[in-house]
Amino acid sequence: MKKLINKPEDFVRESLVGMAVAHPDLIKVHFDPNFVYRSDAPMQGKVAIISGGGSGHEPMHTSFVGMGMLDAACPGEVFTSPTPDQMLEAAKTVDGGAGVLYIVKNYSGDVMNFEMATELARTVGIRVFNILIDDDVAVKDSLYTQGRRGVGTTVLAEKICGAAAERGYDLQQVMDLCRRVNLNGRSMGLALTSCTVPAKGTPTFTLGDNEMEMGIGIHGEPGRERMAQKSADEMTEMLALSIIEDSTYSRTVREWDEDGGEWVDVELIDQPFQRSDRVLAFVNSMGGTPISELYIVYRKLAEICQKQGIQIVRNLVGPYITSLEMQGCSITLLKLDDEMIRLWDAPVKTPSLRWGI
Amino acid sequence: MKKLINKPEDFVRESLVGMAVAHPDLIKVHFDPNFVYRSDAPMQGKVAIISGGGSGHEPMHTSFVGMGMLDAACPGEVFTSPTPDQMLEAAKTVDGGAGVLYIVKNYSGDVMNFEMATELARTVGIRVFNILIDDDVAVKDSLYTQGRRGVGTTVLAEKICGAAAERGYDLQQVMDLCRRVNLNGRSMGLALTSCTVPAKGTPTFTLGDNEMEMGIGIHGEPGRERMAQKSADEMTEMLALSIIEDSTYSRTVREWDEDGGEWVDVELIDQPFQRSDRVLAFVNSMGGTPISELYIVYRKLAEICQKQGIQIVRNLVGPYITSLEMQGCSITLLKLDDEMIRLWDAPVKTPSLRWGI
Repeated sequence: MKKLINKPEDFVRESLVGMAVAHPDLIKVHFDPNFVYRSDAPMQGKVAIISGGGSGHEPMHTSFVGMGMLDAACPGEVFTSPTPDQMLEAAKTVDGGAGVLYIVKNYSGDVMNFEMATELARTVGIRVFNILIDDDVAVKDSLYTQGRRGVGTTVLAEKICGAAAERGYDLQQVMDLCRRVNLNGRSMGLALTSCTVPAKGTPTFTLGDNEMEMGIGIHGEPGRERMAQKSADEMTEMLALSIIEDSTYSRTVREWDEDGGEWVDVELIDQPFQRSDRVLAFVNSMGGTPISELYIVYRKLAEICQKQGIQIVRNLVGPYITSLEMQGCSITLLKLDDEMIRLWDAPVKTPSLRWGI
Repeated sequence: MKKLINKPEDFVRESLVGMAVAHPDLIKVHFDPNFVYRSDAPMQGKVAIISGGGSGHEPMHTSFVGMGMLDAACPGEVFTSPTPDQMLEAAKTVDGGAGVLYIVKNYSGDVMNFEMATELARTVGIRVFNILIDDDVAVKDSLYTQGRRGVGTTVLAEKICGAAAERGYDLQQVMDLCRRVNLNGRSMGLALTSCTVPAKGTPTFTLGDNEMEMGIGIHGEPGRERMAQKSADEMTEMLALSIIEDSTYSRTVREWDEDGGEWVDVELIDQPFQRSDRVLAFVNSMGGTPISELYIVYRKLAEICQKQGIQIVRNLVGPYITSLEMQGCSITLLKLDDEMIRLWDAPVKTPSLRWGI
């Protein structure tokens, strides 16, 4: 196993220790249960944004904790959902009295545990809502997911909602914004290689020397098709057109109804991209692909968007939501409005995303 | 070959096109000869900082062009020195009348071509000096190098000297500072896997399933020893102690003598680290190693430094000087003084390093 680790069972803890030692000005780490939180938490009167999920996708989420982004992140074991007690303790630690938004990627374990944490937090008087991210157009249902998986849009939602909370949006406003970001964002990824979970020690799946997996999930879940590796331009076109030509998508999600004190089903529908849309184009490395290759992809993506009349007004290029050392990339397009652009541009100061400060 | 590329011969050009399209607010790209330069160049009255070298080490150097860091970067083909005409045209484009510093990693091809470019630039009236970075303690001479190779300290020198130039240091001051940064910085790296140069299509070298190369060069040059893979803590200790316990190092470098109008030999000596030194600790991914593992290394490095009485006052953790998709890491320790700390903290705005703005 080609990794810089000690015992596999210490992987998450030791990585968190390293973060804590490296960034004491930005974050603190709580152990047992594990969560990373802003060193200046709780911020009185500010809505707190918390996310979390399995480890192995770094920098997401733990390295996105800090001013203008997350108040806390709950890392599970590698590719394993965090537990409700992590989420509850994180909420208790960072709630500044204005409530908490859990941003939840759509994987069954994450959804279940964040729902449980929402109920627990409410029993101790913390006002919590959760919003699902389900932006992966690759497949309808997947190995660990009913409905679409949550991928790249999560990073963008954390930045945009974090900025909104920093600017004084109330909980309902941040929640509405987060839902809108999710409905405006669509993603798809591909893998050229597998990755190896430390505790398992062998690759999650195998790909031939000239094979790739189109529509890969961030835990190595099967995508749309395994096929012969293509040129960067062809791969980019397959990802980009899958996103751009994706049709109207309707799903039912569970949201907490405060008045009724129970979960209710809400139908959410998002619309295809259209000519003249302004978008943020996010080209992401799955971990093992260097940034030089991401720019080759970005080049083709910009050309495709231009042909389609879609205007890229912001971008993000780099490894932000990864699958350990997997080689490959994903593309996310997020339709932007003026408000979202202002919030994207707002200052942020976290271990892995920083500008304006 | 597991890469997101089209034709191997188009790798560098297409990656540069992507950068230009993604970051028009920060950089422009000139083709034939190829160089990346600040979109607001030339800055009248400011010393211009130029670096360059083979491609394949991204984000270094091209993604470090921008406010507070490089004025231009000259990318060669992958792992191949850029040519003097690239360096000359870059100097002509960004010189604002206050002269140019070439920051040169110590590889024979780079050294020769930057020396030639220095002479050419001087014939057209541009005042140019070059400073070598030779910070790799792993081996005395190497495959492409007489003396120590230039590695991680290059990134730090580019940031610190870029900030100095931005603040109005004159050419002599920036040159003296760059030399001091080089003398204060020491590095060593290791590889868990090889990497594949696109034009070759097969790995540069091979490592067994349980092997690593201690003291690897950034082009895959042999290091000190090939050995069985060890735990992250043992690997970190080998790198850190090699750096900390490295003895006084003396070498002769060629510098341009302005009065005599010729190259002269200068002897430079740097001293070992000492207790109570304040350092910047830089844990770098060789490209394919995820940031979660870098934090495991950082954690142990911090512990070792503390034991040795060396105080880490700044750090940098991430992929900044890479070898394509190679898995592995390098450590750089840079002894800091107050001036260097102020310059490190100064605002920077480049595609891959950004803060304060």
